[in-house]
Amino acid sequence: MTYDVVVREVGPWDGLQLVKQVVPTEIKAEWISQQASLGFSNIEVTSFVPPKLLPQFGDAAEVVRRANSTSDLVASALVLNMKGAQLAMEAGARKICFVLSASEMHNQSNVRCSTDQSVEMFQKIKAWQGEHYPETFVAAAIATSFGCSLQGDVSQYRVTELAALLAELGAREIVLADTVGYGNPRQVYNVFKDIGREITNVPLAAHFHDTRGMGLANVAAALEADIRIFDAALGGLGGCPFAPGATGNIATEDTVYMLEAMGMHTHIDVNGLLELRKNLELWLPEETLHGTLANAKPAINFIRNSA
Amino acid sequence: MTYDVVVREVGPWDGLQLVKQVVPTEIKAEWISQQASLGFSNIEVTSFVPPKLLPQFGDAAEVVRRANSTSDLVASALVLNMKGAQLAMEAGARKICFVLSASEMHNQSNVRCSTDQSVEMFQKIKAWQGEHYPETFVAAAIATSFGCSLQGDVSQYRVTELAALLAELGAREIVLADTVGYGNPRQVYNVFKDIGREITNVPLAAHFHDTRGMGLANVAAALEADIRIFDAALGGLGGCPFAPGATGNIATEDTVYMLEAMGMHTHIDVNGLLELRKNLELWLPEETLHGTLANAKPAINFIRNSA
Repeated sequence: MTYDVVVREVGPWDGLQLVKQVVPTEIKAEWISQQASLGFSNIEVTSFVPPKLLPQFGDAAEVVRRANSTSDLVASALVLNMKGAQLAMEAGARKICFVLSASEMHNQSNVRCSTDQSVEMFQKIKAWQGEHYPETFVAAAIATSFGCSLQGDVSQYRVTELAALLAELGAREIVLADTVGYGNPRQVYNVFKDIGREITNVPLAAHFHDTRGMGLANVAAALEADIRIFDAALGGLGGCPFAPGATGNIATEDTVYMLEAMGMHTHIDVNGLLELRKNLELWLPEETLHGTLANAKPAINFIRNSA
Repeated sequence: MTYDVVVREVGPWDGLQLVKQVVPTEIKAEWISQQASLGFSNIEVTSFVPPKLLPQFGDAAEVVRRANSTSDLVASALVLNMKGAQLAMEAGARKICFVLSASEMHNQSNVRCSTDQSVEMFQKIKAWQGEHYPETFVAAAIATSFGCSLQGDVSQYRVTELAALLAELGAREIVLADTVGYGNPRQVYNVFKDIGREITNVPLAAHFHDTRGMGLANVAAALEADIRIFDAALGGLGGCPFAPGATGNIATEDTVYMLEAMGMHTHIDVNGLLELRKNLELWLPEETLHGTLANAKPAINFIRNSA
């Protein structure tokens, strides 16, 4: 049995979050354009957050405009509040992804309000969007869905409840994010199976970090739980603010490779990805990239079978 | 549901295979002893191979003797032929593991005979062992069970056939090894499920490399296929002769951590493992260790739940 699977690049946003060097807009646009040409129809290109907090994304509006000129690409922008959502839509973002945390402690620390208040904020964003930009695709992501480095366990019931609320309020896609790499394959399978029973009219997506080496194991587990949309960052870019030196997002090239090896169809050019990763190394000379495929190279039967 | 799972350390053999620095016997003995004290009841301590080919294992007999003095430890020795098997048993190895490859090309390159000839050799070893050391536990491992970097695909039928033959000839445990990191979770699940239907009276074990990042995903998949014995090497030691810089065996610390996080019982002290890994760094100053847990540290809810 084979399936179509969507691998979404989140490097230009989540991957660059902790990168100290402010990457020129020109390079971001080039990265996005090159990656789209390899078969990526979904790229999270930037975030509309206060430039004082994250100078890396001071060029968000310009990045969105440039990305929109790439044909067949759904360029999405991450937003944390009404201001960011308005700016994103005004800049022409065709898709926005609103993020809240399932962990109360993480949500307080990240956006200084309760998760209930974040849900209310989402409702207001949806109302504003419905009035001004009704054609914009609005997704919602639930951070720390599999555990939180501040509070520890996160209630699986609360994750499902939040997902159901967000879907009811009009989110057209729900992303469960393992923000700090706390998830394990058994848990991932159970959580997605459980949520999949409650939410049947909105697609679910998975966002895994490889902080504790379980990133690809969690992808395989989510796949078994019928998830077909996965976030990943080229070169495993991303890191973890709470664990210096730790790996970040799952590496796009490793993720695509595993899914293809398993017989899924990503419609992405793996060898092209490895070439693009070399460009990323040049663009970010101070960053240590992660992932295994760049060193190991695809298996010879993989090359034969995909030829 | 929780289960007991055996994680077996293979660092002193498979992990040291490509290490240029010849590790003093004293240090190997210390490593084995310290690791046994953390709850490891199974350690592959050495290999009886010609010292001219692999000087690292010139002290095999001495390592076995030292390991045997560690109480409650099943110290096993890897062997490739009759000579090695005889030397191992004469040195007092209570367990030996005979290795052949499922790939004809890999077997030819490794031991210069066909896989049929290797099976015959196993039969002779079993006969000799039955006569001279009837109490020795004899296991068999099938290398390149999930693909081969020389010939590419490996027949799943042939792997099952070899496993059945070896079991019939008296192997008391069959290890399927992904020697070059070609396996993917779907394949691993299918192969183990398939073999599990044919071989019901002999335990099956899994030996994964993390060459293409799928090591832990393959552990999770094998677990779903009812496998409960896993090989791993501390610090992901091992490498791959065909891919310079590539990762090797799955890291013991990451493997134990994932299994425990999934609710399995390994009866192994994870924090102790991270301490031992620091010793390994001192013992092997020229090696780059792999694995994620050493940087990321266990999750705070993991620490709470296991306290």
